[in-house]
Amino acid sequence: MPRYALKIEYHGAPFVGWQRQTNLSSVQGAIEAALARLEPRTHNIVAAGRTDAGVHALAQVAHCDMADDWDPFRLSEALNYHLKPQPVAILDCKAVPDDFHARFSALERRYLFRILSRRAPAVHSAGLVWQIKHRLDLEAMREAAGILLGKHDFTTFRSTVCQADSPVKTLDHLTIAQVEAPGGVEYHFDVRARSFLHNQVRSFVGSLERVGTGSWQPQDMQAALDARDRAACGPVCPPQGLYLAHVGYPEDPFA
Amino acid sequence: MPRYALKIEYHGAPFVGWQRQTNLSSVQGAIEAALARLEPRTHNIVAAGRTDAGVHALAQVAHCDMADDWDPFRLSEALNYHLKPQPVAILDCKAVPDDFHARFSALERRYLFRILSRRAPAVHSAGLVWQIKHRLDLEAMREAAGILLGKHDFTTFRSTVCQADSPVKTLDHLTIAQVEAPGGVEYHFDVRARSFLHNQVRSFVGSLERVGTGSWQPQDMQAALDARDRAACGPVCPPQGLYLAHVGYPEDPFA
Repeated sequence: MPRYALKIEYHGAPFVGWQRQTNLSSVQGAIEAALARLEPRTHNIVAAGRTDAGVHALAQVAHCDMADDWDPFRLSEALNYHLKPQPVAILDCKAVPDDFHARFSALERRYLFRILSRRAPAVHSAGLVWQIKHRLDLEAMREAAGILLGKHDFTTFRSTVCQADSPVKTLDHLTIAQVEAPGGVEYHFDVRARSFLHNQVRSFVGSLERVGTGSWQPQDMQAALDARDRAACGPVCPPQGLYLAHVGYPEDPFA
Repeated sequence: MPRYALKIEYHGAPFVGWQRQTNLSSVQGAIEAALARLEPRTHNIVAAGRTDAGVHALAQVAHCDMADDWDPFRLSEALNYHLKPQPVAILDCKAVPDDFHARFSALERRYLFRILSRRAPAVHSAGLVWQIKHRLDLEAMREAAGILLGKHDFTTFRSTVCQADSPVKTLDHLTIAQVEAPGGVEYHFDVRARSFLHNQVRSFVGSLERVGTGSWQPQDMQAALDARDRAACGPVCPPQGLYLAHVGYPEDPFA
């Protein structure tokens, strides 16, 4: 069966997350239902990252196996047609070798987290950011972020329901940019690793926000990391600021 | 009565436009209702630009007269509290002299128009752009935009219901930027004048889009302008790409 890689954008709000769940709206379920309009049967697609309820994607990657030989452009157009009016869009579609696996072939996942800092309620970015009212100390957050880089036991920053075999992961990149926004500023967290533990990015950002407000000193991040104890984590921040932004493969199927 | 200038952001979708209309949701009506929660009486606020149904604002300016002396920050906070959950936010509030008039003191209005060009349906920017599927010829649009600059009889680009005394206006600025967007590009039109005719920006952009597709040659814009005939205009584009972006005054009340 010919295999296709899909680059997928979605708004997290109406979904219980990526993963299919009986009788609930999932992104996977929406795309599989659209595939079933094209080839009526059960479809099982596999994604690079199983995002949680409310989390967005700018470029999730999934693969699907089709019975027919589809022109990739036509396949993406047909899927977008059947996905409407749900907020899920196929941005690109490419034929890939049988051994391409959206999840297991991935070498890097990048997440973006957007915090909006302003007094007035978000209007055009409502549902697309985590809004706080205070400014954050960018330099203190950057210092604390540096502590998290590299290979560590990230038990502190891992949800208690995380199913990963090991809490040891390597964080490759964590930078924070301050961006002008109407009436305030946004802080954009760019977080990259080969793979992540459950809730790891939202645990990082929630703890870094504590540093940004001055509730934590940067060295408190070291203590939290060393504790290897979920109770030492800052508050996990809400999902609507989080975006799966990029998935890296040995060979980019969309290049 | 002390007078206050309000800088206002709003999402146009749920409103019939800026202007108050009996039994219909307007931005003016929403703000006046919030003011009535603070000082129970009839309020009459005045805005720089009476935006149409569906048009957004990044920085509309209005003035209101209060009986009490309000701390401007407290006034903005109280209004935002009472405006929730409507997509209207007071970004700033300043005490201004009695002779400040949001409409008549304004020297410049700037509008932003966003066209999203991509095949896949808009997801995170749904309702915030006018989406088209084809790419546009930026240089051709820029050439045609140059024809519109300066003082002209803009009858062609004026709604038939426009109530302005004269169709003669001076267009000070019309630039078009191409911006990367996930899965495509956006074209951002930056349009500035002391004042505008009804539907002028949407008539400009609709005609420029015709040039961008190649349906019109740039010199067809000259013919359309010279015709001084509404029938010579390109299609008026939809409101959800349009934003009132800035209002200029001799002295910026929010500086």
